[in-house]
Amino acid sequence: MSDGKQAASRVSRTTTRVRYPETDRMGVAHHAHYLVWFELGRTELMRQAGCAYGALEDVDGVFFPVIEAGAEYIAPARYDDVIDIETRLTRAEGVRVRFDYVLRNAGDSRVLSEGFTVHASCGRDGKPCRLPESLRLRLTGHGDER
Amino acid sequence: MSDGKQAASRVSRTTTRVRYPETDRMGVAHHAHYLVWFELGRTELMRQAGCAYGALEDVDGVFFPVIEAGAEYIAPARYDDVIDIETRLTRAEGVRVRFDYVLRNAGDSRVLSEGFTVHASCGRDGKPCRLPESLRLRLTGHGDER
Amino acid sequence: MSDGKQAASRVSRTTTRVRYPETDRMGVAHHAHYLVWFELGRTELMRQAGCAYGALEDVDGVFFPVIEAGAEYIAPARYDDVIDIETRLTRAEGVRVRFDYVLRNAGDSRVLSEGFTVHASCGRDGKPCRLPESLRLRLTGHGDER
Amino acid sequence: MSDGKQAASRVSRTTTRVRYPETDRMGVAHHAHYLVWFELGRTELMRQAGCAYGALEDVDGVFFPVIEAGAEYIAPARYDDVIDIETRLTRAEGVRVRFDYVLRNAGDSRVLSEGFTVHASCGRDGKPCRLPESLRLRLTGHGDER
Repeated sequence: MSDGKQAASRVSRTTTRVRYPETDRMGVAHHAHYLVWFELGRTELMRQAGCAYGALEDVDGVFFPVIEAGAEYIAPARYDDVIDIETRLTRAEGVRVRFDYVLRNAGDSRVLSEGFTVHASCGRDGKPCRLPESLRLRLTGHGDER
Repeated sequence: MSDGKQAASRVSRTTTRVRYPETDRMGVAHHAHYLVWFELGRTELMRQAGCAYGALEDVDGVFFPVIEAGAEYIAPARYDDVIDIETRLTRAEGVRVRFDYVLRNAGDSRVLSEGFTVHASCGRDGKPCRLPESLRLRLTGHGDER
Repeated sequence: MSDGKQAASRVSRTTTRVRYPETDRMGVAHHAHYLVWFELGRTELMRQAGCAYGALEDVDGVFFPVIEAGAEYIAPARYDDVIDIETRLTRAEGVRVRFDYVLRNAGDSRVLSEGFTVHASCGRDGKPCRLPESLRLRLTGHGDER
Repeated sequence: MSDGKQAASRVSRTTTRVRYPETDRMGVAHHAHYLVWFELGRTELMRQAGCAYGALEDVDGVFFPVIEAGAEYIAPARYDDVIDIETRLTRAEGVRVRFDYVLRNAGDSRVLSEGFTVHASCGRDGKPCRLPESLRLRLTGHGDER
């Protein structure tokens, strides 16, 4: 899959700290927040690719609703831990975009979670629409970035 | 204040259960979620008044953004506790609406929190607009409900 | 898989309403909250099976941290929609428990999402421990319930 | 109030970005999240004062549950906006600690919100306990920091 290879060149790293309300009474971060951290990751990847997601929606009228998501929870994250979020664009073709994520504890590099999200490319009317070619090129790192 | 007296006639009760992700590592519900429970309370009050908030926004183009909120936290709420939410409309005039809330543990009627929210009445453009009279009458229970 | 067949007998239904803060600026419920709704579903299933999850943690010292989760997002959920949550226990053996979920719009029965969670059975020390037989029987509906 | 004057010397600044799930269908950040941002502010203030809150709970056995909170919402915050969080310790005596907050849009310095939280100083048993003097001195900036 040629797009897969192209997309693999786009990797982004960012960090977040576990917030107190993200913990639950088990004393660790609740699993639903990992999806929010994944979203922080793809937000930064898209910003670095020159297509900040806010502008994508507001200016280009392109939306990326999540149509599938999955995560493995390998080790717990605790309050105030710094989480490294590694995001990889692994598909961007037709009406589909896919990101893969690895979360690590920044203190000891231990892998906490691996996951993915698949998105539909949609227009303002909420209907699927082909990813604009210029956007696809920027995302995959094969166009003129920024 | 005549509106205060009128408004006092509108009281609503509903319940919610403390969700696992609403707890934090202290083992109790995190204080930010109380604002969400207050919102459940006023949502039900408005539904009972015949002005479901969703239709208010979608059909009437009236929005009630929060401009002030406050809460006292009197006793902790724990996972799976049933919370009684008592909501009282205490002001509805001009461009302001105010709700007061009392949260109780449904098991033993212990008061957990008292709080309030003040809302601006706004139009679709986000600018303050006088509360429509028909809406004010329904909210305060002095119009033809439903 | 005999346990699968046994487990299939345990199905639970409950409902929730989409809360305002569960929506995002796309105008629909944010995908991370679906994991919270799944949790509401398994909480009710366990309550109906006579093993309320809070007591499981507090009394029995058994914890079910999520080790894997996945969801497909088929149709959007909107503010104030009533969501039917159908939960099915599909595995309960050794140190693993699995639940499968179907979310439907209660208004028109349209399927909104299908998903699953896999849990490790752990003790107070956070280490995996075999699901106690009495608990397994209650969960799968083959023991003396209540 | 001498403590008030002392405390006034402790000010902290940090930033956060508005996350997508923090927005609601009104297109702006939901008001409950401001309490979470306030918490980010006091977390950083305490870290800078040499008493990271996690260690306070885990090592010192001191907890600061919120007993009162309030906020004014002056201007909306939007997706991906950078929020400046200014936190001021305004009381630390007996069994009470108070923080005051100002949130600004980092882009144009516009004030978005002003608020406060009051905390009880509690021990591991959840009962109020006098703020340890060494902690009080570090918090107010009158002890040996770090």
